[in-house]
This record gives sequence, structure tokens and C-alpha cells, in this order.
Amino acid sequence: MRGAGLPRRSDPGVRPPAVLHARRLGIDTSGEHVAYLRADCAVCRSEGFGTRARIALRCGARDLVATVNVVLSALLEEGEVGLSETAWAALGVLPGQAVELAHADSPHSLAAVRAKLLGARLGAQAAAAIVGDICAGRYADIDTAAFIAACAGRRMDLAEATGLTRAMSAAGQQLHWNRPVVVDKHCVGGLPGNRTTLLVVPIVAACGLLIPKTSSRAITSPAGSADVMETLAPVALDLAMMKAVVEREGGCIAWGGAVSLSPADDRLIRVERPLGLDSEGLLVASVLSKKIAAGASHVLIDIPVGPTAKVRSAQAAARLAARLAGVGAALGLSVATLASDGAQPVGRGIGPALEARDVLAVLQGDPAAPADLRQRALLLAAMVLEMGGKAGPGQGLALAESVLAGGAAWRKFQAICAAQGGMRTPPQARYTEVLAAAHGGRVLAIDNGRVAQLAKLAGAPAAPAAGLELHVRLGSAVDAGQALLTVHAESPGELAYAIAYAQSQAQLVRIGRPGSPGAGRSARI
Amino acid sequence: MRGAGLPRRSDPGVRPPAVLHARRLGIDTSGEHVAYLRADCAVCRSEGFGTRARIALRCGARDLVATVNVVLSALLEEGEVGLSETAWAALGVLPGQAVELAHADSPHSLAAVRAKLLGARLGAQAAAAIVGDICAGRYADIDTAAFIAACAGRRMDLAEATGLTRAMSAAGQQLHWNRPVVVDKHCVGGLPGNRTTLLVVPIVAACGLLIPKTSSRAITSPAGSADVMETLAPVALDLAMMKAVVEREGGCIAWGGAVSLSPADDRLIRVERPLGLDSEGLLVASVLSKKIAAGASHVLIDIPVGPTAKVRSAQAAARLAARLAGVGAALGLSVATLASDGAQPVGRGIGPALEARDVLAVLQGDPAAPADLRQRALLLAAMVLEMGGKAGPGQGLALAESVLAGGAAWRKFQAICAAQGGMRTPPQARYTEVLAAAHGGRVLAIDNGRVAQLAKLAGAPAAPAAGLELHVRLGSAVDAGQALLTVHAESPGELAYAIAYAQSQAQLVRIGRPGSPGAGRSARI
Repeated sequence: MRGAGLPRRSDPGVRPPAVLHARRLGIDTSGEHVAYLRADCAVCRSEGFGTRARIALRCGARDLVATVNVVLSALLEEGEVGLSETAWAALGVLPGQAVELAHADSPHSLAAVRAKLLGARLGAQAAAAIVGDICAGRYADIDTAAFIAACAGRRMDLAEATGLTRAMSAAGQQLHWNRPVVVDKHCVGGLPGNRTTLLVVPIVAACGLLIPKTSSRAITSPAGSADVMETLAPVALDLAMMKAVVEREGGCIAWGGAVSLSPADDRLIRVERPLGLDSEGLLVASVLSKKIAAGASHVLIDIPVGPTAKVRSAQAAARLAARLAGVGAALGLSVATLASDGAQPVGRGIGPALEARDVLAVLQGDPAAPADLRQRALLLAAMVLEMGGKAGPGQGLALAESVLAGGAAWRKFQAICAAQGGMRTPPQARYTEVLAAAHGGRVLAIDNGRVAQLAKLAGAPAAPAAGLELHVRLGSAVDAGQALLTVHAESPGELAYAIAYAQSQAQLVRIGRPGSPGAGRSARI
Repeated sequence: MRGAGLPRRSDPGVRPPAVLHARRLGIDTSGEHVAYLRADCAVCRSEGFGTRARIALRCGARDLVATVNVVLSALLEEGEVGLSETAWAALGVLPGQAVELAHADSPHSLAAVRAKLLGARLGAQAAAAIVGDICAGRYADIDTAAFIAACAGRRMDLAEATGLTRAMSAAGQQLHWNRPVVVDKHCVGGLPGNRTTLLVVPIVAACGLLIPKTSSRAITSPAGSADVMETLAPVALDLAMMKAVVEREGGCIAWGGAVSLSPADDRLIRVERPLGLDSEGLLVASVLSKKIAAGASHVLIDIPVGPTAKVRSAQAAARLAARLAGVGAALGLSVATLASDGAQPVGRGIGPALEARDVLAVLQGDPAAPADLRQRALLLAAMVLEMGGKAGPGQGLALAESVLAGGAAWRKFQAICAAQGGMRTPPQARYTEVLAAAHGGRVLAIDNGRVAQLAKLAGAPAAPAAGLELHVRLGSAVDAGQALLTVHAESPGELAYAIAYAQSQAQLVRIGRPGSPGAGRSARI
């Protein structure tokens, strides 16, 4: 009897160490750490592990928390613990290496998630604890889903968003530059084809500003800037390489996921994407934490506004702009925003390689290059040049124009690609199919969401050549049978899915019949 | 070119049917349907499936939606699709049988979950759609987590809770009895050891009322009534057997999960449990949907109130009681509630077998039987007897007493156990350890949550003999070294975990030193 010196009714003895041998099962669980345990293994029995239990795994200096899946078959040998791909990588084990297992409590920071769901505010310390637990892989996917739900919509105030942004920016690696001015740009997305990053970076860098740009892969869209850039050059730079590229060329277009700037963001996005749940607070923290970690002093944020864009009204854009500026100010980051026209997709291509071709056309001064993409990029570059002190107020546009038209931006882009590992040619899809107008008339509306969905069904962004080309713009006059868009796919199955979807969506491209301008009669294509 | 008769630039041809052969992988994913696909399989490539994709699987007349895990190893042969245990069972396939695969969109009802998270009300139709999708296995665990988060705390009003309750009760099987009065009872839980169901059912049934009781297994507690009953008799009755037992004996104590009454509830609980997130609306819908589906006309609900119970204040209990009565009234169910003393655990044992022994002691008239458990059960039985018209107002307690003291309840309990498949003896744990008071004094507080946690760490409810015996009650005078509780475990590892936890929790049992009554000085045991 403990504490009293009386004899115990039984003695548990010394607990045997819970050790199993690592087995890589090769199962990609999309990021969640999963440990597979035999139902009959001695460790499982004596430790009381069951499916959905959380267990701590340790091997050498590395540890993580995993969700248990119990294996009832002969998938594992006796004495083995199976690991999912991310758990295998995070633990850094070799096949057969000994792994120690122990009970893991539910992370303490989940109490703050529950409290936030029940209406409490999210304090700065709680935010830091949550971010720390997420980065350490202690959140199961359902825990992360609950946190995202707790932050959904506009449920975070300025102080909460600031605390979360600070915690996220501090959680990973951070870049420091010996320059008073380091610029950056970002687009909150929702507008297919809006690939201005690949133009703004070379224009701005050609003018001598430092712009260490990291981009994300697609979250819910058919292509992120990193996906597009990857069809032109390697983007998975490590921090040292990214630093070297920026120091040599003044700019880069790297994949943020590879450099571990704000690593919590990537883990959140992994669950946000399939949930399809937006959060203003998470959006602000996602954007600004990466900029702060990248060492930026001045950031320009493009907020496309339109009836089918991510941001639907000027009011919503103004609110988001104020929130971004407010959080930025609280964290010493100068944030400017631009509410841009988000009524229709930008450029011609939607999908990684197709968007890359639009970018190349603009850089190379091709007269057939999409004028809207060119104009948007010039405007953003102009604002960045003025923010960064390279042009006086109102002088930025002329400078940006001259750098683009004179070929300096194109040369700089090639130099950046070379520095990132070598320029390459975007792939071409093997399967394409044209969709035509069922009747003539004028294009009244193009639905950004449905266009994005169509490109995704065609295979973008996982299939880089997949997507679509839009052959019309708002206001275009079309004849019956005229090509509206071309779907590109890398497999027949994906092409068939995309075509079936396009034919079921009357609102994809809305064509008004001649004689009834603006009547909005939908035309199935 | 479709719709225009122009030649296509390429022809996708006829899409090959996406068919793979079923392989049971024997992986228990805790209910989520998971389909394992080889990364290099032709179907995977041509259909564009990747990890976290949702795919529809069909085999004969059965279908389901599963989350994809991509397999990068040789776990699967070419042409195979691996299935998790629940997916295997739900699809009802044989090894090697052909399974058709197709893209599955995110379920439409998720839009209502998102809207609810963003502040919209949950309409009755939306609730029905969500419940339907959950029952059909179309929600991934993260979707279910988001729905639970959307309903967290008090975020559902009366109409929302009513709509959800109706949808849940209508979603599964339903029982109908040819009797105007069918009674039931329920406890909202949070009080370890409060195992009155196993006493109320035989008392009430012995008096001639119909009480078709289904109980749940533990959600976040060390034992549910189904877990306790299972140590005494089989509880996994199908609907026909449950009906037969009730028609013969007037009552049963069956596991609700086996009869598919309100099946959405079990799927919600599977995610609620590890999330540890409470929702008033989900609680009301969970309780009442099962009662309605079981055909009850009158239900008594026990709401234990105490500083460490699930319901912490009289105000919260009154609110919950009003919500339960309101939803019941809207759905034609007469609901009475009893706010009971929830200051400390009930009875002596905590854990399935240990609680079963307390129940047996009460039924058998053992003078050492826990008086508090006996008294609570009598009070509840009395109210049910009065609600059901077997006793006039104020007469129920005497009737209940006589039935219990006279042995009729014990005979009825044995008859019910026999009808359910045969009575058995609760198991005895192999490992036990006594924890003693570090100093003498009076017991000032017993923490329900910590006591429950201790029993769970000892292995309850998965290990039915595990848990603990409490040797003291609030107000007990103890000497230094006197036994406070005995931990029971089925494995040394679990015993060690539980003991380590108990020693770290000064608040588990609080003992005031003599001479400072009520001072609340905590005593580590």
C-alpha cells in the first residue's frame, strides 16, 4: 500500500519497456501520423492500446504522436509496429529499428479549441500552444478539423488573429535579410489563372528590390503559384538554396512547404482543403505568418472581388483588408491591399502548365499574350515598386512597363529559373476536347468556381498539363458552334469526367441570345 | 466538338469501367471507411484518385463512400483495392470480388454544416440530409468532426434540436409496441458508477410496465450501462431478439448499437469521444432519438448535478431539462427529468464488472450493498412507475421498495438475463493495488472526472474487469494509511499507468486535516 508501508495486494512489478520494431507500410494517410499495431501483440495488450488511441513513438532523439489503427490480419509480423508514410519520415527510422511506445494524452491545447468553440476568446498563449502541438504532429485530423471549425468565418477578432499569426510565424524557420526593405506580394486567391506572382517577382527584382517569394500549392484551386512555377523550374528549395537564389537574383519563386516557413499552415491546409471551410482568421494568419517568417517588411495583397470569387463584395474586401493591415501593423509589417476585379478568370489558361504558358507569353512580349494578366501584373508591380521606394508615387507603372517591355523582366525570370535549378518547358496534355457554344450571343457571365472545378476534374493540379483554356471573355460575341473552351487532361478518364461536368453546368459560361442583351438566358454549352 | 458537329481534337473513347478486386486488409480504422489503392494502378491513374480523395465503391446492390489512402508499397497486388474493416463489412464483399469505383463528390449536406459554423440555423431538411449522409457513411471523420464542432455547446436552438432529433430517430430501425404506455429511462451521465438502469428496468418490469431499454457503451466514461450489463449477460441483441425479450419479460437491457436504433448517433459518438467535445443539441438528439425509435411514450431522464459532474449547476440542469422536455413535446414524447445529486461517484465500483457487482448486491438484498445506488434507483423507479400509471402520485416509492426488497426485482433481472442469452459472472481483475490516505482527516471532495480518468487508465471499459473500488464517501473520516481506493487492472502496464496518474492527482480525493474542517487542504494519496 503506497504511502503507508502496508503490503500490496498485488505487485505490478517493473513495467516492461514497450518496444516494437518499425515497419514501413507504405500507406499515404495524407499527413496524419498513423501507427498500425497488431491486435494480439503483447505491447498492445499490456499497454491497453486500441484503435483511435493516441500513442507516443520515440526513436533516438525524435518523437511524435500517432493515431492507432489496429491490424487484425497478418499484415504485420509479431513484434512490429507499422508506420504511415509521414510517421515513417518524421520519426526517421530504419526498417526493423526499435521504437519505444507510450500512452499519449490528448494534447492539452485541445481544451483551448473546445473553449473557443464554446465561445471563449483564443488567447495568445493558447494559440501558441495549439500551433506548437499542430507542428509537433500531436493533433489527429479530427482535432485539426475542430480547430478549423472553431475559427470558421469571422469568429476570430483582431487580437486573436494577431496572436495566431505571431505563433505561426514563430513556429518554423525564419529568414533574416540585411536590408531595411524586403518586399513581398500575395493574392488571397479565388480567381483562376491569376498568376501575377511569376511576373511581379522578375519585374520587381529587375528593379533591384529584394523579393523572397514563397508560394503555396493549390488549396482548393486548380493551381497554386508553386504548381505553375514548378512546370518552369524546381520550386522545392531548401532554406539555404532559397537564400542563395535571392541573394544572387534579388528574388525567387519557391514552394513554401519545402522551407518550413510557418509549418503549421501546411498542416492546417491539409485538412482545410477537403473540409472546404473558410476562415478569415486562418486566412490572415496563413498569409501574414509566411511573410513575417520570410523576413518581409512590406507586403502587397491582391484581393480579387467578384460575384463568384473568394471575396464577393467590396464590403467583404474592405473588411479583410482592414484585418490584414491591422494584424500586420501589430506585428511590424507594412501591409497594403488592392481590391481587384474578380469578375472572371485571368488570362487564358487554367491549370499549372497552361497558366505557365500565359506567363511566358507576357514575359516574352508575345502580342497574343493575355492583356488582362499583363495589366494586373504591371499594376501590382507598380505598387510594390512604390512601397519599396524604387519609384515615387504615381511613377511605378511606367517603371514596371519599361522593365517588362524592355526584356529585363524576362531575362530576370530566366536567371531566377536557372538559379532555382534550371528552366524547363511546361508539359502538354495528351487528351484535349473543345466545348462549343450551343447558340450565338454575348458572354454574360463566367463562373470562377465552376471553371476551377472543371479544371480540377480534368486533373489539375496533380496532373500539371491538365486544365482548360478559355477562348472567350466577358462581353465576347460568339457564334453558335464557336469554341468556348478547350479541356486538357492527361488521362481519358479525367477528360471524360470534366466533359460530363461541363455539360451538366449551364452556368459555367452564360451566353445571352442576340436581341435580348443582358436577359441572362443561360446557354448550355 | 460537342454541340457543333466539328471534329474533336482528340477522342477520349469509351471510358473503361473502373473495377478492382476486393482485398480485406484487416485494418480497423475506427469506423471510417478507407479504400487503399496502389499509387501505380491503372484505375488510380486514369481516374485521378489520390490520397484523401473520396471514392464511391459499389458491389452488387451495396455501395459506400470511402476515403482513399494511397499505397506506395507491395501491400496490394496489381488490380486490387484494399478495404478497411468497416468498409469491408458495409460493402459485404467476398475476397477477390469485383468492386466498381467512381469519383464521389463531397456530400452536399456539408454545405449546411459550413453554413451552421458560419452562423446560419440548421433547418430540418438540412438536418435530415446530414443524418442521411452520416448513416450512409458518406462523411469522412473530419466532416463529422466539423459537424460536431458546429453543434458544440449551446449552439442549437429548440427547433434545430427538434429537427435533428426527428431526423436521427427516423434514420434507422424503429420499434412499435401495441401498448399505450411504453416507459424508458436515461441518465445523461458524467457520474461514475451511476448504474441505476440495471435496477430500474427489473423493478419497473416486475410491476408490469413495458421498458425496452437500450443502453450505450461508454463514450468518455469508464463504463456505459451496456458495458456493465455485458459482464452479466449478452447485450448485442438484434431487433427481433430484443422484441422477443421485452415481450416475454416486459423489459430488456440491450446495447443500442446492435439494433440500429438511431444509427447516426453511434457514428457521431465515434468521433465525439476522441474529440471530447460536448454539445447540448447533440446530447438531446442522441438521447431522445433512441427513445423515440425504441417506441417509448414516457421517458424519465436523470441529470446528475455537481461541481465535477457533466452538468455543473442547477441552472444548467434546468436549461437542459427544459430543452429535453421541449424537444420531447414537439415529437410527442412525454419527458420528465430529475436533477439528482452529482457531488460524488455512485456506489463502490467504477468499471464494468465492478459496477455489476454493486448492482448484484442491491438486487440480492446484500446488507453491504451501496445504499446510495439503491436509493437513487428506487427514486427513479418510483417516478417511472408513477409516470406509467402503475402507482398514484407519491405511491411509487413504496411499490418500488416492496418489489426490490421482496426479491421480485432480482427474479426479474435473472429472467431478463436468461432471456438475453444467459446470465454470467462478472470477471475479476488479475492485478490490483490499494491507494491509501497520506494523512488522516475527513473526505472533503471526490473528483468525478479524475476518478473516471483513473478507471479508464486502468483499462475500463475495454478491459471489463478493470476500474477501481472507492472505499470512502464524502464526509468519511479516514486515518493515515487507511485504504481510499483499490485500482483493478487486467495488465501490469495499465495498473502502472493508473497508479502513476493517481499519485500525480492531489485533487482526486481531497482530505481535510483534523482541526481544520473545511479548510480544503489537499492531501496527496
